Amino acid sequence: MVVVVYDIPDDKRRVKLSNFLEGYGNRIQWSVFECFISLNEMRELYQKVKKQVKPAEDNVRFYWMSDEAVSMTLTIGSENPEPPPKYYVI
Amino acid sequence: MVVVVYDIPDDKRRVKLSNFLEGYGNRIQWSVFECFISLNEMRELYQKVKKQVKPAEDNVRFYWMSDEAVSMTLTIGSENPEPPPKYYVI
Repeated sequence: MVVVVYDIPDDKRRVKLSNFLEGYGNRIQWSVFECFISLNEMRELYQKVKKQVKPAEDNVRFYWMSDEAVSMTLTIGSENPEPPPKYYVI
Repeated sequence: MVVVVYDIPDDKRRVKLSNFLEGYGNRIQWSVFECFISLNEMRELYQKVKKQVKPAEDNVRFYWMSDEAVSMTLTIGSENPEPPPKYYVI
């Protein structure tokens, strides 16, 4: 799992990034996403996000977490990280 | 390392928590701290924070990361996680 946290003062860029990240994972807090993607996918996501933010003004961090670490997550006021279902019954 | 992220609408509680967390690690973003503490210390911190927030209104998450995972962190606009020096030369 990858935790993405960001501080982006510019409204337009912030909304654009959060919309973009909706395609990768669950929005957990105002500027925190939990994305169940691989380490390589995290690196690819990082490259894509770099193109839409301004390092001089914006702050984005990508934390990689193993399944074991994810299981140790502690939460107050919300559910534990929930990986998407492995398959859907249609 | 432990990443603590929080969404706390109430100004007083939010400021109180961030002041409290200053004693445990580095403030990275508006509501994100990186704390170089052990897993057990994370559990102790969790219990202490539980006493000063309201689960019905507040959202706090504690992510445990191994040293290896920390080294894979990717950042835009800020430095990589920096563990405190192991010793100080006086």
